[in-house]
Amino acid sequence: METRKRILTGDRTTGKLHLGHYVGSLKSRFELQDTYEEFILLADIQALTTHFDNPKLINSSIYDVTIDNLSVGLDPNKVTFVQQSQVSSIAELTIFYSMIVTVNQLRHNPTIKTEAQNYGYEDITYGFLGYPVSQTADITFCNADLVPVGEDQVPHIELCRKIVRKFNKLYGTSIIQPQVKLSQVGRLSGLDGSAKMGKSMGNAIYLSDTPEQVWKLVRKAVTDPARVTTDIPGHPEICNIYKYHQIFNPEEAPEIHEGCTSAKLGCFDCKKRLNVVLNNLLDPMRERRAYYENHISEVKEIIVEGTRKANVIGNANLDAIKEKMFLKI
Amino acid sequence: METRKRILTGDRTTGKLHLGHYVGSLKSRFELQDTYEEFILLADIQALTTHFDNPKLINSSIYDVTIDNLSVGLDPNKVTFVQQSQVSSIAELTIFYSMIVTVNQLRHNPTIKTEAQNYGYEDITYGFLGYPVSQTADITFCNADLVPVGEDQVPHIELCRKIVRKFNKLYGTSIIQPQVKLSQVGRLSGLDGSAKMGKSMGNAIYLSDTPEQVWKLVRKAVTDPARVTTDIPGHPEICNIYKYHQIFNPEEAPEIHEGCTSAKLGCFDCKKRLNVVLNNLLDPMRERRAYYENHISEVKEIIVEGTRKANVIGNANLDAIKEKMFLKI
Repeated sequence: METRKRILTGDRTTGKLHLGHYVGSLKSRFELQDTYEEFILLADIQALTTHFDNPKLINSSIYDVTIDNLSVGLDPNKVTFVQQSQVSSIAELTIFYSMIVTVNQLRHNPTIKTEAQNYGYEDITYGFLGYPVSQTADITFCNADLVPVGEDQVPHIELCRKIVRKFNKLYGTSIIQPQVKLSQVGRLSGLDGSAKMGKSMGNAIYLSDTPEQVWKLVRKAVTDPARVTTDIPGHPEICNIYKYHQIFNPEEAPEIHEGCTSAKLGCFDCKKRLNVVLNNLLDPMRERRAYYENHISEVKEIIVEGTRKANVIGNANLDAIKEKMFLKI
Repeated sequence: METRKRILTGDRTTGKLHLGHYVGSLKSRFELQDTYEEFILLADIQALTTHFDNPKLINSSIYDVTIDNLSVGLDPNKVTFVQQSQVSSIAELTIFYSMIVTVNQLRHNPTIKTEAQNYGYEDITYGFLGYPVSQTADITFCNADLVPVGEDQVPHIELCRKIVRKFNKLYGTSIIQPQVKLSQVGRLSGLDGSAKMGKSMGNAIYLSDTPEQVWKLVRKAVTDPARVTTDIPGHPEICNIYKYHQIFNPEEAPEIHEGCTSAKLGCFDCKKRLNVVLNNLLDPMRERRAYYENHISEVKEIIVEGTRKANVIGNANLDAIKEKMFLKI
């Protein structure tokens, strides 16, 4: 019998995953897979909220994201991959929860607020406004105990817990109020110094990048702009490459800091060293990726089987909920 | 093979049905059951939008509404009763449609606007705001051709058609754009002269009322207040009882009009005549009701079997839609 606590995490299927995703969540998923029962949601419905007009990207990303996760060493015998759009209990729970959340609560949600400012509130879609409701269904369809999120996602989980409390009180259900499992590492900034790493920025190193692609990005990375020649001492605290050394190469970081500030280590050599470190990290991923890309039907089976398992759990929970709601005749 | 066009209609399961429902839709459902394939939605999810805190009422109303429909002569071998909350494809379609409808479109919907004024926009629930989205899913999960609605519901169906057009264009699906089938008869006013008949008003004659209950309501109905004694001529055009004669007793209405204006027919006798007419209408309903109330497992089977049939149709349609949306892996 399963005794591990259940974690619900996942990725929107809107493109391949990069080092930002690795640092922010995949690394921790890998480390936690023995201690926790992990459900990895392939969030193709969430993807629709912003990418409804690009269904082919969403489709190919279902495989890409799964392989990205497998490549970091997630073991399909330990974790469960779940294709969100194939789990009807999530949709049904979303509808139920939507009855007890006011429009006002959603409008005051920080993420919605930010997006509303970007898009203009009037133009966001109904589905987008309901993102926290949908997320609550994602987390609770399988009664997850924990949700690993960054600081910025905490208000979402607070709203989720509030919805669950209200629902349980109304109908006498016993849906678990999920707890936040705060991610330790913050956001990885782009190699160009942008606050965020992303496809549209052209500043992201993807887990699926070749050594050549990695070097191309590392080589052109912005360092200390004042250090026009190697004999001028650098300022690591404003250097993107140094930030990466701190995260991916913590043992050597102090020595690199010293080399930079004393003008003993030039930017080109410093980049070469980071390049080695990154490829050392990525090489085993590349190996696993190669295996799965050559066994794509195995990947499909992992998704199908995980989704089947999720449906069994979700349908049983939904059934019990409907019973409590007096929707059974 | 089914060649009749499909009609989607139904009732929110928030209480028993009354003569207003009969005149507004049940009568027409009865008349159309041979010409059209009718799906009668037992709308327990729609009921939740306003009655989420009264699930027991929703539950008992699932049976009440079904028996009300059967009592008017709807033949379970001809029409299909569908319990909305047990059809997951409706929930899934609701989620899909929610991605392509803006919050703005919903806020400008006349019904939402009215309710927003009543409740204050800030306080309506997310589910309530999405009522037209949910309704679009109700209608299209089975590719209904026609929706019988009153004039006031036409904007809803317009929005529904708009959503379907946009969706079909985006994904290359072939969801049927439902047509409006305008109801001939307007709203039945309450016996007390209120514009609307309703439980909360205490002015409604229920299809399940006994002859005694009917007479109690008819007897105390407001007529022409100026006609304090029988020898004063009445004004049928402002009399509630006369309105009912026009609708339920059209053959005798001219004679009754003449009797009233010439002071030959007193209000009490006029009410007694209406009472006879109403009970003549309700008596065969009472007979059918008695049968079904004594065979409640048969009613359950009608709902379960209709819902099963609806699920087969809904799941097949949803499957084809998901295929077109590239959500199949």
